[in-house]
Amino acid sequence: MLFPIPPVSQGLKDQLQKKIDTKTKPLGALGMLEEMALKIGLIQNTLTPQLHHPHIVVFAADHGIVEEKVSAYPQDVTYQMVLNFIHEGAAINVFCKQNRLAIKVVDAGVNYDFPSGINLIHAKIAKGTKNFLREKAMSFEQCQAALSQGAQVVRDIAPSGCNVIGFGEMGIGNTSSASILMHYFCQSPLTQCVGKGAGLDDEGLQHKINVLLKAISFHHPSLNVNQPLEILSTFGGFETAMMCGAMMQAASLKMILLIDGFIATSAFLAAYRLAPHIINYAFFCHCSDEQGHKEMLRYLKVKAILDLRMRLGEGTGAALAFPIIQAAVNFLNEMASFESAAVSTKR
Amino acid sequence: MLFPIPPVSQGLKDQLQKKIDTKTKPLGALGMLEEMALKIGLIQNTLTPQLHHPHIVVFAADHGIVEEKVSAYPQDVTYQMVLNFIHEGAAINVFCKQNRLAIKVVDAGVNYDFPSGINLIHAKIAKGTKNFLREKAMSFEQCQAALSQGAQVVRDIAPSGCNVIGFGEMGIGNTSSASILMHYFCQSPLTQCVGKGAGLDDEGLQHKINVLLKAISFHHPSLNVNQPLEILSTFGGFETAMMCGAMMQAASLKMILLIDGFIATSAFLAAYRLAPHIINYAFFCHCSDEQGHKEMLRYLKVKAILDLRMRLGEGTGAALAFPIIQAAVNFLNEMASFESAAVSTKR
Repeated sequence: MLFPIPPVSQGLKDQLQKKIDTKTKPLGALGMLEEMALKIGLIQNTLTPQLHHPHIVVFAADHGIVEEKVSAYPQDVTYQMVLNFIHEGAAINVFCKQNRLAIKVVDAGVNYDFPSGINLIHAKIAKGTKNFLREKAMSFEQCQAALSQGAQVVRDIAPSGCNVIGFGEMGIGNTSSASILMHYFCQSPLTQCVGKGAGLDDEGLQHKINVLLKAISFHHPSLNVNQPLEILSTFGGFETAMMCGAMMQAASLKMILLIDGFIATSAFLAAYRLAPHIINYAFFCHCSDEQGHKEMLRYLKVKAILDLRMRLGEGTGAALAFPIIQAAVNFLNEMASFESAAVSTKR
Repeated sequence: MLFPIPPVSQGLKDQLQKKIDTKTKPLGALGMLEEMALKIGLIQNTLTPQLHHPHIVVFAADHGIVEEKVSAYPQDVTYQMVLNFIHEGAAINVFCKQNRLAIKVVDAGVNYDFPSGINLIHAKIAKGTKNFLREKAMSFEQCQAALSQGAQVVRDIAPSGCNVIGFGEMGIGNTSSASILMHYFCQSPLTQCVGKGAGLDDEGLQHKINVLLKAISFHHPSLNVNQPLEILSTFGGFETAMMCGAMMQAASLKMILLIDGFIATSAFLAAYRLAPHIINYAFFCHCSDEQGHKEMLRYLKVKAILDLRMRLGEGTGAALAFPIIQAAVNFLNEMASFESAAVSTKR
């Protein structure tokens, strides 16, 4: 493995649980926040965890499959939205600014020549993937390069002291790719994995399903489904592969991972197949309104922090969930105990 | 009516919706945030709403019904937790500090003599309600006084410029009271309205249900169920009645109301019966894990912003939801439009 991800030490589990249970509140009354506090304490192996220099990284890339008209939006929107991120006009910019999260935007493989001198991490593998209806989306070497680049992005952020990192994406066509990844990794029927993406109508959705079914039958005979990287290179996107590498590197550095929506979770599924312990570092931030995401979360046996019926990507779910995660850390560190506050316990 | 609550003007509805729809995101992709932005724009009757000086007000009181052993905790916990609020050691203090919300704590009727000179609003109606298994919880005059005091608290906060206000509570025994309010206002069978509160076991829950059923049969013949204030004075708490008055005053001042969990929603139900337009000013912040709250929200035809399986009260759900509400306002004001960012629209 490129990125060894160790299991999380359970050494402080009882002490953390006791600290949580003696806070001035009924047992368990902070619900998911208590589970989150425990998980973060275990990741950082301390009774007083801290979140430092939180980042959101947005990976952008284009997809050859858009030739088949599987998206409601033209491909140009990918680069236009990247420029919108750079100019701080997108939803993710607004939410990062509000919650004081640093934002990094990565060109993982956008079909556009960005100028130099802008606030963009240039990591383009190619100008979009190939059309996976006819050939593999990327070569195995490109997939490896994308994983490595993703890891490098995280290693470049680490010296800031960052220990919590969210993953977002932009890429017209990427729900098509993610649907097939889900189909293989979760072993769900394809129709359950495909949704309307950025806004297909019913007819467009049916067309998308037909295209993806054809793509699967075209590649399936030559695919070893027990090889996650083969699935990723056959159907994935550069942003997805790069996110996968970034997530694995971040977990191997014991960072807290904020997983956004449908696409980010498809990247996580690949990482999870490669290194199952990664799940102990991951927080699923928002249950997307895109069909399929609920089932992905069920497959992973996790509950998302938020469910605001969003389906935007960009890392918006991660950025919005961040204050909740911060609240979990804060109650653990700052709340009084029954003893310190002289509050009577249950009779 | 003491507090006339006008309907919200729909004058800017189309313009607000257009502003939301032309932001650089697929139509509807910000889900509930879009509904929240529209609602806030309508409340403030502007295309550029602002949240100013957000407050959380925590109303505390004691309940005579605790004589019947309906709570897992002793009554002293009410005053002890009030002191914990004052010393900033409770969950609500931690979350208010994190999200920069001002906090006010109100003694609505705690069975304790608090010293003067502490950061507490002294509005005690009496040292706890009466035991409603044997007599009315409060007199009609006490109920009116509590409503007025709640309104006064809000009027005292208003000059700060506050236009968004969350309501929380503390009161050992108050889930018993809230369950009966729910039973009457939502017309739900009592067993669906009663939960384990701060931590009853199964036997304790059954005992609580039996006590509340007895209380209902004792009062029902002399009760006019179409008179919300009669229900409130018979079974309510001073904190609940005071919250009800505070909510109504806040809506009449066109503030945004942040409704917390099970108890706060029971107070809202009373206000809603008295002045149905109040619902257009209200955001339901967290779906409590206390049995009954889900059904209250269904009755009101609303979806809570958060569902973190908490059941703590104090206004914690409101404090945690605040950044999401702020995000709704911020995207409306700060995101670029397709035109301003030169992003292509749907084909």
